[in-house]
Parts: sequence; C-alpha cells; structure tokens
Amino acid sequence: MLTNPRSDRVKSVRALSRRSVRSRTGQFLAEGPQAVREAVRFVPEHVRDLYVTPEAADRHADVVAAARDAQLWVHEVTPEVLAAMSDAEHPQGIMAVCRWARLSLDDALGALPPDPLVCVLAHVRDPGNAGTVIRGADAAGADLLVVSDASVDVLGPKVVRSTVGSLWHLPVVTEVPIETVLGALHAQGIRLLAADGSGQTFLPDADLDGPHAWVMGNEAWGLEEQVRDACDDVVRVPIHGHAESLNLAMAATLCLYASAEARRRRG
Amino acid sequence: MLTNPRSDRVKSVRALSRRSVRSRTGQFLAEGPQAVREAVRFVPEHVRDLYVTPEAADRHADVVAAARDAQLWVHEVTPEVLAAMSDAEHPQGIMAVCRWARLSLDDALGALPPDPLVCVLAHVRDPGNAGTVIRGADAAGADLLVVSDASVDVLGPKVVRSTVGSLWHLPVVTEVPIETVLGALHAQGIRLLAADGSGQTFLPDADLDGPHAWVMGNEAWGLEEQVRDACDDVVRVPIHGHAESLNLAMAATLCLYASAEARRRRG
Repeated sequence: MLTNPRSDRVKSVRALSRRSVRSRTGQFLAEGPQAVREAVRFVPEHVRDLYVTPEAADRHADVVAAARDAQLWVHEVTPEVLAAMSDAEHPQGIMAVCRWARLSLDDALGALPPDPLVCVLAHVRDPGNAGTVIRGADAAGADLLVVSDASVDVLGPKVVRSTVGSLWHLPVVTEVPIETVLGALHAQGIRLLAADGSGQTFLPDADLDGPHAWVMGNEAWGLEEQVRDACDDVVRVPIHGHAESLNLAMAATLCLYASAEARRRRG
Repeated sequence: MLTNPRSDRVKSVRALSRRSVRSRTGQFLAEGPQAVREAVRFVPEHVRDLYVTPEAADRHADVVAAARDAQLWVHEVTPEVLAAMSDAEHPQGIMAVCRWARLSLDDALGALPPDPLVCVLAHVRDPGNAGTVIRGADAAGADLLVVSDASVDVLGPKVVRSTVGSLWHLPVVTEVPIETVLGALHAQGIRLLAADGSGQTFLPDADLDGPHAWVMGNEAWGLEEQVRDACDDVVRVPIHGHAESLNLAMAATLCLYASAEARRRRG
C-alpha cells in the first residue's frame, strides 16, 4: 500500500498532467474505471502501472482482475495518494500510467481498410469536446482519427476521461500539421468534407459514397478558410428551429453517423 | 452603477441559484451573452432586470441596445457585484433575472402544430446534459419539450447556460409526473419512442412517420422498465465501433435529427 502523498512516485505521476512531461516521457494518465478498463482490455502492453484505492478495487474488481491476469503492476494506494496523483476534481479511485505508442500518418493510412471513414480534428481546443468527438467517432465506426498539431493534446487527462476508453478503440495519429494531413488523405483518394456552418451543402444532401474524411474545426470559429478551400465540399448540419448552432461534438456525431449509415446501406 | 456586492438586491439575485427560491418566486437566472440575448429577443415581457458590467456592455452592445429598446431595466454593476450575483465559475459580465411563464401540459398539447415532434426528458439528472438536449431539440425543430418532475430543474443556472438560449425557442412544460406525460401524449395520438440502449429496433429502422415523441432516460441507467413498457417502441442508436455507448445528449441529438430528416422528406 502506497501511503505517502508526497513521495517522488506520486509527484512523477501527477506531473503527467503537464503536456511537457507527457512529451518528454511518452507517458500519460488514464483516470476512472472506464478509461482504465479499456486500456487494460485493448492495450495491456502499454499500461505501465495501475493505481487503485482499496474501496475502488472492490467496486471495480473486474478491472483489477483483468489487470492482474495481464500481469500488470497493480499498486494499492490510499485515497490521499490517489487524489495527489490525479488531475480530476472528483477522482474515482483508479488510474493507470500508460505509454503512448506513436503512430505515423503513413503507417496509419497504409493500414486503412477498404472504404474507410476518417475523422480529422483540425483545430479543436476544448478537452471535453475533443473527447466527446473521439467517443462519437468510435461509436460511428470510424477507422482512423487524426489530430492536428493545432488541436488540444488528446493525451491530456480531461480528454482521456471524456473519451471513456475510445482513445484505445481506433488508430489515433497526433501532432501532424493540418496541411500535411489533408494532402496525405487526398493522395490516398480520400474525399475531404469540411464540417462548417458556412457550408452550402446540407448534411442530408452530402455525397457520402466512397472513402471520405470529416474535418472538424474550432468550437468557436469553425474552420480556417484555407482548410475549407482544401476540402472537396463544405457541409453544414441543417438547423430546423431557432438555435444558432449545434455544439461541435453534436455536429461531429451527426456527420459521422450519417457516414456510418451511408456505409451500412451500401453494405 | 451598483457597487455593493453585499446589498440585499445582490443577495436576492444570487439566491435564485437555489431551486427552492426559484419555486417560491417564479424567477430564475439567465447568464452569459447568448442566453440573455435570446431571452431579450424571444420573451422580453419575461425579463425582469438585466445586470451588466461596463466592459460587457461594450462587448455586447447589441444585447444592451435591444434590452433598452424593449424598455427593460438595465443596471450597470461592478465586476464584483456581477460575480456575487452569479453562480458561474467564470461569469461573462451579463445576466438577467427572468420570470418563468408556467405552461400547462394541456395548453401545450392543444397548441401543437400538425405532425408534431416532441421531446420528453423522463429522468435526466445532469444539468449540462439536459441543456445540451434542449439545444439539440431546438436545432432539430422539435415543437415541444416536456420535462418530468424526476428530471433536473431546467431553470437551474447551469442548464440555462447550456441551452444557450434554446430554452426560449420552443414551448417547455416542466414538473409533470412521467406517467401523466406519456398518457396525455398517447391520448393525443402521439407515438412514444423510448431511446434506450436495451432497444431491439435500431434507429435507422425506426418508424418515424407521423406524430411522435422521443423519451429520454437517465444518463447512467437509461429508462425505467415501466416507462419503456408504456412506449410504443424502444429504439437504440447502433454502435458500429467498440464504444460501449454514446452519451445521452449525443444519442438524443441523433434521434431527434433522424425525426427531423424523416419529417423533411415527407414534406
């Protein structure tokens, strides 16, 4: 049982809340039972250490058992130690330190299945939005998520929590300049659809046949003009009532699900 | 200029963050430029007082001008007074005290247009989720929102903020027992579709012809069995990837937009 909230180990775990430390070490935090469960299930080889309070070990016995089966290091800690390690306002008693297996854009594109659906975060800044879009992309069956270097760090604790495990469910490429992403997707024959309120094409009328990628912009001001111009079409979700807009995560989910349904219909 | 953050007026505004005070006074808070703008635009007769800092009055001059045009009371306040009135972590310099015009279920049903789309919150507890669902219902063109007495108080400051004004864009009936809601909708010939992960009908296969209502359950455990049993069908959003589920607001938005699109197609 780890009992000292001021130990070097606790400090080094907590330091992973900082982007600079994540970049330097290649490690990041998965907090909460859902994120830890999915990390243990999908990428046990990348889980370095698991920390759990006795109470959470009882409540999430399945997660702890799966971790022990995978021969992971499971450390019991006091609630004070867990709180000192965690960035969360209400820590849920269980967290893991994970390694990030960096995936190159070329490798990811080379491994795409036929008729792929891709989601690109061009300039998403809010951690909760980014996490929810990743969860939506996973649910819609997207084959690849690409996060530009102008977007929020998806290995930040709040993004990871918001994905509730989806971060490990599909290939994720990070920190690529958006021009590089768009060029590489085009070269691969993947059509680029910008999701933006300025679009002239309504979502129900968009051409969703064949390989395509949804490009999502900033939650406040949408997509930059040069990004929209580099896309094959600019598509907007119709607003039927008096709302000015939908939030980014909702618009992204509607777009991705429209693609999923089009793909299902063409078998 | 109001300068005393400890005045009785400031205390009585701040007290509206409490549900009991809202119930007793029939008043509630709209915080932030979007919510205030939409309240002034859609229901000026229900805006009692508007409070704004000099800096926010400059930044949101259109809102202040519209309020003065509508002959509303606009009070300039110091940032300290606004912070003392507000429930928000980062107050945005502008807020309004509004009256709630209670709408009865019978009156609301009597005023429905032909082929209505209705959204029912049966047991939604999280303020942010509730607000986002209301925004989604507005964007999808829903004609009525009904909030059961087991759901969160939609006049709470966090819900109002999350709706970014949609609370005033469509008729909203609150605090009705769910059995009463379902019975009244049925009696009106409105089909009831429960949105729930336990459903046997996938959303793309759901019958969305004719008048219907989406019934949304609790974010953690979905809908109670007796509510599901009282509905005509239980519908789930298909999950194509490895995600366990979508969050409530995303699932609700997908369901409501599927109905909007079905309605658009049949003209």
